[in-house]
Amino acid sequence: MSPSFCPRRSAVAEWLYGRHAVVEALRAGRRKVARVLLSDSLKEGKGSAENTISEIEKEARRLQVSVERVPPARLDALTRVGRHHQGVAAEVSPFQYNSLAEVAALCKAQGPRALALLLDAVQDPQNFGVLLRSSEAAGVTAVVMLDRRQVEVTPAVVNASAGAVEHLNVCLVNNLPRAVEALQEAGLWVYALQAEEGAALYTEADLKGALGVVVGSEGRGVGRLVRERCDGALAIPMLGKVESLNAAVAGSIVLYEALRQRTG
Amino acid sequence: MSPSFCPRRSAVAEWLYGRHAVVEALRAGRRKVARVLLSDSLKEGKGSAENTISEIEKEARRLQVSVERVPPARLDALTRVGRHHQGVAAEVSPFQYNSLAEVAALCKAQGPRALALLLDAVQDPQNFGVLLRSSEAAGVTAVVMLDRRQVEVTPAVVNASAGAVEHLNVCLVNNLPRAVEALQEAGLWVYALQAEEGAALYTEADLKGALGVVVGSEGRGVGRLVRERCDGALAIPMLGKVESLNAAVAGSIVLYEALRQRTG
Repeated sequence: MSPSFCPRRSAVAEWLYGRHAVVEALRAGRRKVARVLLSDSLKEGKGSAENTISEIEKEARRLQVSVERVPPARLDALTRVGRHHQGVAAEVSPFQYNSLAEVAALCKAQGPRALALLLDAVQDPQNFGVLLRSSEAAGVTAVVMLDRRQVEVTPAVVNASAGAVEHLNVCLVNNLPRAVEALQEAGLWVYALQAEEGAALYTEADLKGALGVVVGSEGRGVGRLVRERCDGALAIPMLGKVESLNAAVAGSIVLYEALRQRTG
Repeated sequence: MSPSFCPRRSAVAEWLYGRHAVVEALRAGRRKVARVLLSDSLKEGKGSAENTISEIEKEARRLQVSVERVPPARLDALTRVGRHHQGVAAEVSPFQYNSLAEVAALCKAQGPRALALLLDAVQDPQNFGVLLRSSEAAGVTAVVMLDRRQVEVTPAVVNASAGAVEHLNVCLVNNLPRAVEALQEAGLWVYALQAEEGAALYTEADLKGALGVVVGSEGRGVGRLVRERCDGALAIPMLGKVESLNAAVAGSIVLYEALRQRTG
């Protein structure tokens, strides 16, 4: 085994699927794309779906990646996601994660504009992908996530993010409290998104400076050791009978409130 | 067939599943609950899952609803959702929708505090449930949704809403432009959530008064006839490379911005 061997960055290729996942992987250009497969039953037309297929063909030409037309059953077999592949798949090298040192340096370089999302055990790939999509749209510097009990950037997550994660800096860490500390040393004020006594209303907290937001799991919230390391807690008002929002929605609302305060 | 027969309100019972779905259906008290089934493999304990099971047992006692312990395979067979039932199911009467006239009257009665969410073809049950959960948390007066091409309040939707929809006023309509008009007549200013030329930034629009927000489908956005009937369009800034947010996230962000403006 070579000393640089790392199971997270194994050379085993994977199959991305879905129009947005594939077009954003091609545009971002971070992964090696071996080939693109398109279903031979895809129709010509002028809708947004057909436009994205044209974009995929254009990007593939630019990158000199082969595009093959195949029977839909071939895509079904390769991706094993029913028809969620939308007639599109790409064989790609694995997602490349950033190191914590890289993320801390990026945050430091961005000064007061730095915005990091930290994920403490968000387990559902759909929620995870949706939150990555919001993060990319809100212009976050990086996403830092715990490497245990947690979904990685799998093809299902790329799909749920509408391909957005291909443009994001994502870091896996073994020790989230230590990551909070590293980001604090890089100048971030780190809040746990957690309804607890003494939590600040998210709209009343000052989110203008360098900021990190920790989102916990739906059941257990943010872990105690992570919470103790944070600078404070933020709460979102709940006016109805249920106790919490979907975790991806809650994280997105706070990221967009930070954006509002920064640009307002 | 009796003249009051309505296929939407058929007497056929359905099986709600999931801890939150079942406890909120019991608490809300709108559906008839025939019986609650709990898996005999559920463990005792002091976590939030176990607390919810105790709540279910307490609510069932209050309502004199029978609670049966059954083998998990029985729940698997009844709910057909794999293990997503979390060991909990309830046989209930169908979800009761409100009429448009009822919703319009409710909005009128709430005056400037009225807040309605309108759904134009949000197709994914997960997204739909998540948006209903946010709506309940943000205190919306009612949710109005198009009755074609659209998911109804199925057990999967109740589950995705964490049971929140059991407390919500939901109205199915055949003609969404006409529903927009009815809400405008009730005093609401109705915006389409749509990135288009001339759309107002959602944080710069005045969302303090009686308000309706129309969320479209991810692919096609808000339909043309609906859009023409609206008073304006709202856009959420996209700072990254992808073009849009998840529909449930986008709707939730605007509802919470309305709440911020009203309470700030």
